[in-house]
Amino acid sequence: MNTTINVKSLKKAEFIDITRDVRSAVMESGVKDGVCYVFVPHTTAAVTINEGADPAVLHDMVGAFDKIAPDEPFFKHAEGNSDAHVKSSMVGASLHVIISRGELVLGTWQAIYFCEFDGPRQRKVLVKTVEG
Amino acid sequence: MNTTINVKSLKKAEFIDITRDVRSAVMESGVKDGVCYVFVPHTTAAVTINEGADPAVLHDMVGAFDKIAPDEPFFKHAEGNSDAHVKSSMVGASLHVIISRGELVLGTWQAIYFCEFDGPRQRKVLVKTVEG
Amino acid sequence: MNTTINVKSLKKAEFIDITRDVRSAVMESGVKDGVCYVFVPHTTAAVTINEGADPAVLHDMVGAFDKIAPDEPFFKHAEGNSDAHVKSSMVGASLHVIISRGELVLGTWQAIYFCEFDGPRQRKVLVKTVEG
Repeated sequence: MNTTINVKSLKKAEFIDITRDVRSAVMESGVKDGVCYVFVPHTTAAVTINEGADPAVLHDMVGAFDKIAPDEPFFKHAEGNSDAHVKSSMVGASLHVIISRGELVLGTWQAIYFCEFDGPRQRKVLVKTVEG
Repeated sequence: MNTTINVKSLKKAEFIDITRDVRSAVMESGVKDGVCYVFVPHTTAAVTINEGADPAVLHDMVGAFDKIAPDEPFFKHAEGNSDAHVKSSMVGASLHVIISRGELVLGTWQAIYFCEFDGPRQRKVLVKTVEG
Repeated sequence: MNTTINVKSLKKAEFIDITRDVRSAVMESGVKDGVCYVFVPHTTAAVTINEGADPAVLHDMVGAFDKIAPDEPFFKHAEGNSDAHVKSSMVGASLHVIISRGELVLGTWQAIYFCEFDGPRQRKVLVKTVEG
């Protein structure tokens, strides 16, 4: 089954927890054992799995990625968001999570995040579940 | 179905658009709804999804990754290409794209790129399509 | 089939070769043609594919990631391991390898690594194989 999650980012850069939405998509699909594919159809955003307990981790990650891939004087792309394209490829547009007994198999501290690197924008995340 | 795409890189570092080749592989496979797996069997290259419209983005990304992961005085690997191995793991050797109605589900601006970090070389990209 | 690989890291940061364990999981599953999903259920670790021949590459990669994502004065997360969370999202928690004729399709120099960024710890890697 394919599901589209709508995400509205409010800042230039932020990590938005979409675990609940992905869980709902898995539940609605009825898949008991299989794989959940998460895909971001944007080139200045990404999807990742990281800690869901302490919001300070998100603050630190956003700041770190900004320092690792800042705006550079040698950038030519006229839209001025090349740093966001770099972050998008560093973190990645696709990931998968195993489904077992109808549930996403995530570690105790893991949450799924939509990563905005060039917001604020209206965004989408695609979720596909396959039995197998 | 498994398909091998041959890629010839011409520079030390460059991103080569392979979207058309991956699309052909999907079409030949006849898969209508499923998943397309893209895999790079090399350790100094990678595969990513990013903007396909403005070539300046590729110029900026290649330059940015070079600055983020440069050659370092503490590197011990005798081949002198450790920076390319680092970039390979940062960007990743595997990704997937959802297939719907016989088509890759990519965002408006997305293209699939083979990322060369230690060229020029003759390279391969593996594509597998599965109905589901 | 689902398999859990137990990994014991001995250092703060190290890449541990788990190719043999993933191969065993594929063999036991009996899958002939399909996909092998590898997933790390931790938020300060990751999984990657890189060179398996020269240990110097691992030394260089660990050092490079440490330099790329160091501890930062602006980090707020009280556990003091935000740099490990950043590295985890840079390298990624999930990857897949194609299975053909009962074997993982890896390039000549490729090995699968569990990446520890906040050890030493007892860790797990989840492997799922699907025919298709």
